[in-house]
Amino acid sequence: MKPHYLVILCLVFSSISIDLIAQTSSQPKKVKNIIFVEGDGTGLSQVSAAQYFKDGPSNYDRFPVIGLIKTSASSDLVTDSAASATAFASGKKTYNGAIGVTPDSIPIPTLIEIVSKKGWQTGIVVTSTITHATPACFYAHVDDRNKHEEIASFLPVSDVDFFAGAGLKYFNKRKDGKNLLKTFEENGFIIETESLRDFESAEKLGFLLAPTSMPTMLEGRGNFLQEASKLALKRLTNTNGFFLMVEGSQVDWGGHDNDADYLIAELIDLDNTLGDILDFAEADGETLVVVTGDHETGGFTLAAKDGDYNTIVPTFSTKNHSATMVPVFAFGPGAENFGGIYENTEIFHKIMALLSE
Amino acid sequence: MKPHYLVILCLVFSSISIDLIAQTSSQPKKVKNIIFVEGDGTGLSQVSAAQYFKDGPSNYDRFPVIGLIKTSASSDLVTDSAASATAFASGKKTYNGAIGVTPDSIPIPTLIEIVSKKGWQTGIVVTSTITHATPACFYAHVDDRNKHEEIASFLPVSDVDFFAGAGLKYFNKRKDGKNLLKTFEENGFIIETESLRDFESAEKLGFLLAPTSMPTMLEGRGNFLQEASKLALKRLTNTNGFFLMVEGSQVDWGGHDNDADYLIAELIDLDNTLGDILDFAEADGETLVVVTGDHETGGFTLAAKDGDYNTIVPTFSTKNHSATMVPVFAFGPGAENFGGIYENTEIFHKIMALLSE
Repeated sequence: MKPHYLVILCLVFSSISIDLIAQTSSQPKKVKNIIFVEGDGTGLSQVSAAQYFKDGPSNYDRFPVIGLIKTSASSDLVTDSAASATAFASGKKTYNGAIGVTPDSIPIPTLIEIVSKKGWQTGIVVTSTITHATPACFYAHVDDRNKHEEIASFLPVSDVDFFAGAGLKYFNKRKDGKNLLKTFEENGFIIETESLRDFESAEKLGFLLAPTSMPTMLEGRGNFLQEASKLALKRLTNTNGFFLMVEGSQVDWGGHDNDADYLIAELIDLDNTLGDILDFAEADGETLVVVTGDHETGGFTLAAKDGDYNTIVPTFSTKNHSATMVPVFAFGPGAENFGGIYENTEIFHKIMALLSE
Repeated sequence: MKPHYLVILCLVFSSISIDLIAQTSSQPKKVKNIIFVEGDGTGLSQVSAAQYFKDGPSNYDRFPVIGLIKTSASSDLVTDSAASATAFASGKKTYNGAIGVTPDSIPIPTLIEIVSKKGWQTGIVVTSTITHATPACFYAHVDDRNKHEEIASFLPVSDVDFFAGAGLKYFNKRKDGKNLLKTFEENGFIIETESLRDFESAEKLGFLLAPTSMPTMLEGRGNFLQEASKLALKRLTNTNGFFLMVEGSQVDWGGHDNDADYLIAELIDLDNTLGDILDFAEADGETLVVVTGDHETGGFTLAAKDGDYNTIVPTFSTKNHSATMVPVFAFGPGAENFGGIYENTEIFHKIMALLSE
């Protein structure tokens, strides 16, 4: 073989090798969008309920990576939703009741504030009030979760571009007499209080669909969580990327009530919403989906009925939260970083590490 | 540059590229040894107890990969230890009570039988009788887990090279009058009934250290599980590889008794044993460690005491097993295959896939 044929052969082979290196590299693809989903009070038994009580396969089955988080607050071994959501949104352990502030009540930047500086769009979808502990920790900084009106005052001037939930009364029937619906307007928002629908011309869009909480699934909430999440995904797909927080808020309330039918209906609603979110992320290819719970509620157990191992009867052993670790499910670019056992604050730090790549 | 210099340059570059492919390949390293650890009745709350009740960090924290298994038996939604161990050992869903047989009571090959054909050494270490459902499924084929004497008759003629546990009476005080200790001797075993120690000259070695079960940790079992596991690792390190099954058998019994002190003491004993096993695997580099439970027992919950979120009081909600998914922890070559949610039978199939590489 003449030398120049050998050169060509070598170059071709080198080129193939380089392609193979690129394909087999363990470097994660770049993350363009992040969807963070929380099931409030959703521990492993709650997630497992979908295996037995949902028609068809659970969408949790579609996640290739699973982690476990330690959820203790800085103040207590058993966390509340506020300390845990501050851990997710800002990467700091804090006291139960804290909304986006440190143990010394100093405000700390949230994921929504951080990614907005990068030009990302942001959204929040919940089945509680939009001022409830979990969503509040992504846009507000208040020393006490019970100060709903103070929390509400952060939202019109926040970096949030889209939101859907309840809690209208904290904006338009306030003790201080202010009408925050006007402040929303002044900041480019269209606020809708009747039903979920798109306003294509709106710069920012918010839905406050009930004075306090949204109805439960058993009361006929329907597919609000799914439809609001899909509308968020439709509106947030700009060119820079987006961060969307979705919460199945009421799984927790079923746990506190020790009401298995309520809990399971809310869990299945969340599972169905995950289906839509994963469909989007699969098609998109640049979206990281991270799903977890803030804590377990109720000591929920899929027990055997009177020792009959073929009949499952859900049981509870507390009206409160528990300290058991909570599973994390990850899908998409960067998902491989979410395996193993770690503190709940690491959710934030793992996301930040991916953003800096 | 002359053509032959180019050729050399190309060949050097190609060689570097090939090295890079090898380094960045997602193919797991080859598995030489496998250690399978089961915590009987050890669900996520049991594992989480180590976070709060063990001095020092939990060894579960050291696993980079986590999965979740669905545990239903072919006969029942809630599994027993026999159906679940048959799933792990032989990759088949079967009925509750089945020891290494299909739903039609047909024997199916176990991991210990399969790897022994490859020249691997094998071992079993448990804190129950060696004829109990979980260990039995790795060496016996019997239609009913309660037939301890029939199960026992499989062990002297099995492929097991090392074992440690209890259940002496099923070998030397049998209803059929047979003395299986003699059968052990005829098959190259030294059997010790007093204490754990090495017999370097023994071809095979077995410990039957109590007539029925081993004492509980609270009764002063001491470090039997750790020491027996270490002795197994010392004896099984031949040149071909080994399979070792270790069970923290009595976590389940603490759950059935709704006795949190008992359960937690057994869980910490298992956690400490995992520490030794992971130390071995880390140093060895060719050992896959897979840890799971067969099912959760007791509806165990790390609850807050009377709503005091800084005091954890373990609670139970059933005397039986539950249907919640069970976590899987994996470490070492091939560990990356154990993420996500899957049926308990997949533990077997994932191990088999690694063996065929």
